[in-house]
Amino acid sequence: MTTPSTLNDPAALAAAVRRGERRALARAITLIESTRPDHRVRADALLTALLPHTGNSVRIGISGVPGVGKSTFIEAFGLHVIGRGHKVAVLAVDPTSQRTGGSILGDKTRMVDLSRDDGAFIRPSPAGATLGGVARRTREAMLICEAAGFDVVIVETVGVGQSETAVADMVDLFLLLLLPAGGDELQGIKKGIVELADLVVVNKADGDLAATARHTVADYRHALTLLRHEADWRVPVLSCSAITRAGIDAVWETVGEHRAAMVAAGRRSARRAEQARAWLWSEIRESLVESLRRHPDVRAALPDLEARVTAGTLVPAAAARTLLERFLGRPVGTVD
Amino acid sequence: MTTPSTLNDPAALAAAVRRGERRALARAITLIESTRPDHRVRADALLTALLPHTGNSVRIGISGVPGVGKSTFIEAFGLHVIGRGHKVAVLAVDPTSQRTGGSILGDKTRMVDLSRDDGAFIRPSPAGATLGGVARRTREAMLICEAAGFDVVIVETVGVGQSETAVADMVDLFLLLLLPAGGDELQGIKKGIVELADLVVVNKADGDLAATARHTVADYRHALTLLRHEADWRVPVLSCSAITRAGIDAVWETVGEHRAAMVAAGRRSARRAEQARAWLWSEIRESLVESLRRHPDVRAALPDLEARVTAGTLVPAAAARTLLERFLGRPVGTVD
Repeated sequence: MTTPSTLNDPAALAAAVRRGERRALARAITLIESTRPDHRVRADALLTALLPHTGNSVRIGISGVPGVGKSTFIEAFGLHVIGRGHKVAVLAVDPTSQRTGGSILGDKTRMVDLSRDDGAFIRPSPAGATLGGVARRTREAMLICEAAGFDVVIVETVGVGQSETAVADMVDLFLLLLLPAGGDELQGIKKGIVELADLVVVNKADGDLAATARHTVADYRHALTLLRHEADWRVPVLSCSAITRAGIDAVWETVGEHRAAMVAAGRRSARRAEQARAWLWSEIRESLVESLRRHPDVRAALPDLEARVTAGTLVPAAAARTLLERFLGRPVGTVD
Repeated sequence: MTTPSTLNDPAALAAAVRRGERRALARAITLIESTRPDHRVRADALLTALLPHTGNSVRIGISGVPGVGKSTFIEAFGLHVIGRGHKVAVLAVDPTSQRTGGSILGDKTRMVDLSRDDGAFIRPSPAGATLGGVARRTREAMLICEAAGFDVVIVETVGVGQSETAVADMVDLFLLLLLPAGGDELQGIKKGIVELADLVVVNKADGDLAATARHTVADYRHALTLLRHEADWRVPVLSCSAITRAGIDAVWETVGEHRAAMVAAGRRSARRAEQARAWLWSEIRESLVESLRRHPDVRAALPDLEARVTAGTLVPAAAARTLLERFLGRPVGTVD
């Protein structure tokens, strides 16, 4: 049984997470999302305790422009996967939520059936000042979900921007949802996003759009043969209807084929290793700034320097150099 | 006359930039784009010398999804503005260029007429590992262009993602180009981008699309009255045709009205002050990581820690803490 004191003790919280207790899971994610230094120490202890029990899920990134039916697809896909005996966690990365007050998953009316299912856990995007901060917390939330027994983790991202790269960098398979429509330009897809995809799925292949969907599948199959040259995996282009649920089963089968192909080629572990390395550097960056902000000499010098930068009489790069020298107690920016 | 030795001396380079010498301008931007520590020291000296001569341009961010006709618009708009007696610099922010090898402005066939005009200077997006790095260099390039006498600086961004926020954070006016079409979803615009706009322009208002363009203008005018509530500026929605050049003059007039309204309300200087402050923090972040990477104790510990993180036996946050303690020579992450 989870009690308030349990929640303050990383070892007890870790045990409760491993028992799959919902409240502990939610509380653990709230802990890793906190920016308080003492919380961060406990979050590290929690993650260290959970780490041996992580890594056993299929990590799937799902992206697509607004209007592609992403929520409906994730609900249909999630329910299908739960029906096959799995447990599904859905996390979100939405760095715009700082400005818009949260555009995805904040609304509890999304994915109603999935959110009610015992086999599912849905968590909104953390609020965050930077994409780096949001991505860091989502990666850690992924580990916590894995330790809690979720063997399929879906990381959803809004739209068509920088966050897609961040999500592709934390998952095993990046699934791009498309509309039944013409080329990238009509789809509103940012250049470079299609190149991130391990699997392309044309949604809304139903009713009047069925024929258009077939053309779209053919177009992208052709385009992807030009774009991607990987020995172990030719990016498949499928179609489905999240509404009628036609084709959802084939998407899940293809996820399994991708996993098998990557494991056989040794590329799954290679990809995860590279992701962990990138994550380390992201951690370093965020922690450094937090540490600098707390340094007494920086605090003393900061108001004047910030005022001169703000007034336009001091170049930000020069002010940054001065603050770094205060923080580090030695000159910076010199040649090695 | 600019000679190679001039280019190595920040004071001489600054003087050549201020005389408007093309080669010095290009070389100055190359210098600030360099990541070599000795180059960085010279770049700071250059920028400090130029700083009193900056800030006098109209800084305009221009964004829109692929297919909206951004290059054609910037060419038509730039030539119009030059015709009114101004000098126009066009810079680009494209953080995807690290992956795609540069998707905007790398192609010299874009904006042919504008690039040939003596009143124009066009610079491709710098390559960069992070959006922060790319944005930093673009901000400094903007200052250099201002010191060289360009009184209109256009910062172009591709697509519909995170980079729009970065660009909106460095300009006086953020112009969003739209297609003659239905709502945000059909346009492929990421949620939150329309909210960044100070001016919305529906392009391709010609031929068969003229009627659709009128509807789009009416739709967005209505939508923006719901979205934005600012005392000093109601976001205008205009239409134009970059091909026929109809409506381009009204866009430039509206830019002038926005500037006058912002200056009158004291908001132009407030906006620039806030931007400079944000820029300072971005500088600090990037410089800290560079400095950490060069520290001998970090270099000694890094391979083992990175290997354990990569192998999945050490939590990245804990490894980051260890590296920070090596770098700083003191514990981090403790409560104040």
